[in-house]
Amino acid sequence: MLQNVRIVLVNTTHTGNIGAAARAMKNMGLSNLALVAPKKQPDEDAYARSSRADEILDQAVTFENLESAISGCQLVIGTSARQRNLCWPLITPRQMADEVAQAVITQPGAQIALVFGREDRGLTNEELALCHFHVNIPTDESFSSLNVAAAVQVLVYELRVKWLELQNKTLPDWRDDWDVDWADAADVERFYLHLEQVLMGLDFYDPDNPRNLMQRLRRLYQRARLDQTELNILRGILTATEKAAGLQQKK
Amino acid sequence: MLQNVRIVLVNTTHTGNIGAAARAMKNMGLSNLALVAPKKQPDEDAYARSSRADEILDQAVTFENLESAISGCQLVIGTSARQRNLCWPLITPRQMADEVAQAVITQPGAQIALVFGREDRGLTNEELALCHFHVNIPTDESFSSLNVAAAVQVLVYELRVKWLELQNKTLPDWRDDWDVDWADAADVERFYLHLEQVLMGLDFYDPDNPRNLMQRLRRLYQRARLDQTELNILRGILTATEKAAGLQQKK
Repeated sequence: MLQNVRIVLVNTTHTGNIGAAARAMKNMGLSNLALVAPKKQPDEDAYARSSRADEILDQAVTFENLESAISGCQLVIGTSARQRNLCWPLITPRQMADEVAQAVITQPGAQIALVFGREDRGLTNEELALCHFHVNIPTDESFSSLNVAAAVQVLVYELRVKWLELQNKTLPDWRDDWDVDWADAADVERFYLHLEQVLMGLDFYDPDNPRNLMQRLRRLYQRARLDQTELNILRGILTATEKAAGLQQKK
Repeated sequence: MLQNVRIVLVNTTHTGNIGAAARAMKNMGLSNLALVAPKKQPDEDAYARSSRADEILDQAVTFENLESAISGCQLVIGTSARQRNLCWPLITPRQMADEVAQAVITQPGAQIALVFGREDRGLTNEELALCHFHVNIPTDESFSSLNVAAAVQVLVYELRVKWLELQNKTLPDWRDDWDVDWADAADVERFYLHLEQVLMGLDFYDPDNPRNLMQRLRRLYQRARLDQTELNILRGILTATEKAAGLQQKK
C-alpha cells in the first residue's frame, strides 16, 4: 500500500522543504516522490534536510505540470487548507488513509497521488479540480498555514498507521508485552501481609487506628500491577528492613 | 486540553528545529514550549522556521534539566524511538492523545508534559525514567530517526484530532455538508428518461440491443449522487443537444 502512493509537490519554493518531505516519506516507508515545476531542483539544502533519504531525492521525477505528474494514477487526493468556492468531497487525513487502503485492496496495482501545493498559497482551483478528494489537515483557525513538509509528515504518518492496522502490526498493549511475567495474586497477598507486619513493627501502622493505610498501599500496588521481579524486590526490601530494624523476621 | 500540554524539547542542537516545532504547535493550537538546555537559544533560524509563531518562541521558558521543566506536571510522556533495556508502558500517538484527554477530563487543571529528545540520540534512560508513559511514533525499521519537529508535528496533530472529537468539531461527512441540495430521486428519474431519448435520437443507444448502456450511465450518476444544480446542468445539455441535432424536444 505504501509503495502505491506517489507524493506530488507542486511548485515548491524552498528545496529544504523537498528534503524534509523526503525524510518524512522514508521514515514512514514511502519512496515515490514527484516534483511539479519546483522553483529549484533539490540542492544541498534539500539533501541536508533529508537526513539520509538521499535515494528518494535522487529518484524524484520532475514534471512540467500536475496533469502529467498524476498520469497513471487512479486516485488523486489534494491537500486543501480552506473550503473553496465550489465544494468538493472533503475528507480528514484519517479518512484519506481509509480511501487509499480501500483503493489498494480493490485494485492492488492502483497508483495513488497525494498532492501538496505551494508554500504560500497551496493548490490552485484548477489543480484541485484534478482531484477526486480534497483532504484537510485540521489546524487552528487563527494560524492555519502548515509547512508543506509538516503536511506531508501528517499524511504519511496516517498512511503508515493504517498500513500497520491492516497488517495487524499495531503496537501490542504494553500490558501484553511486558518483559517480566506478572506476579501471582497469591504472592502479592503474601507481600501485603509482610508489608503490614513490617509497618506494624516500625510503629508506622496501628491496626486499631488503620486510617485506610493498608487499603491505600494496596490500591497503589494493584493499580501499578506488580511483576514478579518487582514483587521480589519489594519483599527483599521488607526483609532488609526487618533485619536492620531488629524486627522478628517472618518466614 | 491543548493549553494543558507543555512541549518540552531536551538539549536541541538546531534552532531551526525549535522554530519548526513552535510552528507545528501554533498550527495545532498549543502554545506552551519549554526548552531544556538547548545548545543555542532561539535565533534567526528559529524565527524563520517558526513562520509567524514568534510569540511561542518569545514565551518559551528555558530550564537547566528535565526535572525542573516537568515540575508542576501531573502526567509526563516521553518520546522513544526504540524499546529500551527495561520496558516501560509504551503507547501509540493515538493512545497518547487518549491519555492526555483522560487526564484533563478527570483533572481540568492538569499539566501534561510531552518530552522530545536530542536530534541524534533522543532521551537518555534517566530522562525516560521520569516519564509515566513512553510514546512511540511508528516508523520504517530501516529509517526510524524522525526529525524532532516532525515528531512534534505528529503528536500535536493527534492531540488536535482528539480535541476536535471531544468538542464534536470533527469534519462533517462531506455528503452532509454539500453546498447545494441533493437532487430529488423523481427528478433524477426524469433525467434518465430524457437521457435515454436523446441517446436514441443520436442513434447511440438501441433499446433492442441495450448492452447495459443505460444501466452503466445510471450507475455512474447514482454513485456520484447528483445535486440539484448538476441535474439542471445535465438536463440543459440534453436540451441543447436536442436543439443542435434537430431532435424532437421532450417537455
